[in-house]
Amino acid sequence: MSQADPLPPAGAPGARFLAEIHEQPAALRRLLAHDDAIARAAALALERDARLIRLVGHGSSDNTASYGIYAFGLLPRWTAMRDAITLTVHYDTPLDMSGSTVIGLSQSGQTPDVVEYVARARAAGALTIAVTNDPGSELATTAEVAIPLSAEPELAVAATKTYVNTLAVLALLAGHLAGRGAEVSAGIRRASEQLEEVLPALERAAAGMVLPFVYTGRMFVIGRGVEFATAREIALKLLETCRVAAEPLTATDLAHGPVAALDPLFPVWAIASPDATLAPVQEAAARARAMGATLVASGTAATELDGAAYVLPVPSPTPPLLSPLLSVVPGQLFAWALACARGLDADAPHGLAKITLAR
Amino acid sequence: MSQADPLPPAGAPGARFLAEIHEQPAALRRLLAHDDAIARAAALALERDARLIRLVGHGSSDNTASYGIYAFGLLPRWTAMRDAITLTVHYDTPLDMSGSTVIGLSQSGQTPDVVEYVARARAAGALTIAVTNDPGSELATTAEVAIPLSAEPELAVAATKTYVNTLAVLALLAGHLAGRGAEVSAGIRRASEQLEEVLPALERAAAGMVLPFVYTGRMFVIGRGVEFATAREIALKLLETCRVAAEPLTATDLAHGPVAALDPLFPVWAIASPDATLAPVQEAAARARAMGATLVASGTAATELDGAAYVLPVPSPTPPLLSPLLSVVPGQLFAWALACARGLDADAPHGLAKITLAR
Repeated sequence: MSQADPLPPAGAPGARFLAEIHEQPAALRRLLAHDDAIARAAALALERDARLIRLVGHGSSDNTASYGIYAFGLLPRWTAMRDAITLTVHYDTPLDMSGSTVIGLSQSGQTPDVVEYVARARAAGALTIAVTNDPGSELATTAEVAIPLSAEPELAVAATKTYVNTLAVLALLAGHLAGRGAEVSAGIRRASEQLEEVLPALERAAAGMVLPFVYTGRMFVIGRGVEFATAREIALKLLETCRVAAEPLTATDLAHGPVAALDPLFPVWAIASPDATLAPVQEAAARARAMGATLVASGTAATELDGAAYVLPVPSPTPPLLSPLLSVVPGQLFAWALACARGLDADAPHGLAKITLAR
Repeated sequence: MSQADPLPPAGAPGARFLAEIHEQPAALRRLLAHDDAIARAAALALERDARLIRLVGHGSSDNTASYGIYAFGLLPRWTAMRDAITLTVHYDTPLDMSGSTVIGLSQSGQTPDVVEYVARARAAGALTIAVTNDPGSELATTAEVAIPLSAEPELAVAATKTYVNTLAVLALLAGHLAGRGAEVSAGIRRASEQLEEVLPALERAAAGMVLPFVYTGRMFVIGRGVEFATAREIALKLLETCRVAAEPLTATDLAHGPVAALDPLFPVWAIASPDATLAPVQEAAARARAMGATLVASGTAATELDGAAYVLPVPSPTPPLLSPLLSVVPGQLFAWALACARGLDADAPHGLAKITLAR
């Protein structure tokens, strides 16, 4: 597909998914109009001294929580965690949540146990913030503060623009807590432009590499630090749109057992960043290659991984904490192209609905 | 294999792994001799009011951390988390750790980034506790307090007795923090007896069911709450000893995407408990069946899952929080039997060493 090619016609399998991938730069810029609301939420957390961040969500939302751990850790140096919903909601355990900021993540705002968790956390003394694409949803009205994702309707079942906009909300919140909101906001604007520029070439590259993966049944997706969220999200896209048993792993965890499962028919996708996590990711990639696995390299330091059969680099944003806004996109595009090649409709995977009401 | 059958001869593939599975009841009882040391560690955490528990480890040790979240949440009602090692060690982020208890988990006591994390956490004001099978290891000497696992040497690469003994340490610590140490200790003793009684029958059942799985390339292992650790550990055993791409998922997360990947050649193992998590696990199992997946049911409420092709129930310990001491064992035995059937040596998987020094 050349840069001038139009998108597939509406109604073609995967057309919505691909269109929403392309809408991400504009969605990110729309979000920046709500920067004031995000700054006010951060001010409230500072005023209450609510310094333990508890993130809750499922699926892609839970993947953004893995990013939040690093955003809050690196910018304001606050401890953030993916909290155990089951402990509070199913086991009915009363925890003292004073001093905590709870961030409920759900694009639909309807995920039942996330809503229930947020209601209980608010009663237990936490500052509660909803991050959702539906400002009228139950989650938005249950939390004390609601931040709209402003991604406009997302119709494909597999999340794309709500995922990157949630990452951006978490980065902005962390930035404002650290007094660096303006820097993060400017970085997101620039990242949206970088993404817009690189999207056509990434789409061509992803579409051009899927053929050898048509019969792939399983993959590992390796990331570490800020890019572990990206590894989780790319693996989830492959599972839900391509029916590939893709498992996300940190670079170190690969060595603690899973590497033994690799063989030449079990590819590994590795996401590399030019920071202190590069060496462990390089080591993991080398272990995978030693087991005969085909290696796909992506991320801002994709070219630093030796022996990759396929390389999908993305531009480096500033601050580097924003790289996951860009580095998930090669995985989204690969999932779209592979689903098409396998005859699957990425817009409507079998067995899934857009709003998941499972508890 | 009848109850009276001897274990395979030493040196046979998987013989160490199987022998160590059988040593678990005795290992648990050995640990109870160190209950005083565990009580003293708990007293220190209470004295320092170090109420945020940060658990760090990789592989099986990290799986026990998923259990710790529930043990500390359910008994003393303290918040526990699997902390981000990368944030502290690789990104060099100074976090305020006063008010935190750090628990470093490593059977060898040599995992480099766990040792480094514990050293930094101690300098940052945390109470640091090492849980390791080697009381002379670097981890043990780096932490302020060391609790020995007393599992005796574990020679198979895939952890078994160090895993269940680590679970028991975490349960005892949580019990002492809640003033219920004696109850937990008595429960562990009784659980070790229940395990000893049921092991021969479980081994026969697991060995008798592996044939249809000989060509299985991928599986999901579903658990929730206290049994999510079990799901993670069973999946890891299948990955490292059987080369099955087994991914652990919570019951709810299955519905948020991965269910779309299922088909009749993609079995699902579900672990059921007779508590508030039963309904979501039943719902997940039904979704898996609806996609045509073969269902394996285990756990203390295994018989409550409809449509399971294979059922591996375990006895119910008291308190129920101890069920993961038993419920991991059907998965260990299945992994041993499947590795044998596939001609793999579970004692020495390709590409792995007993002590993992990857950072």
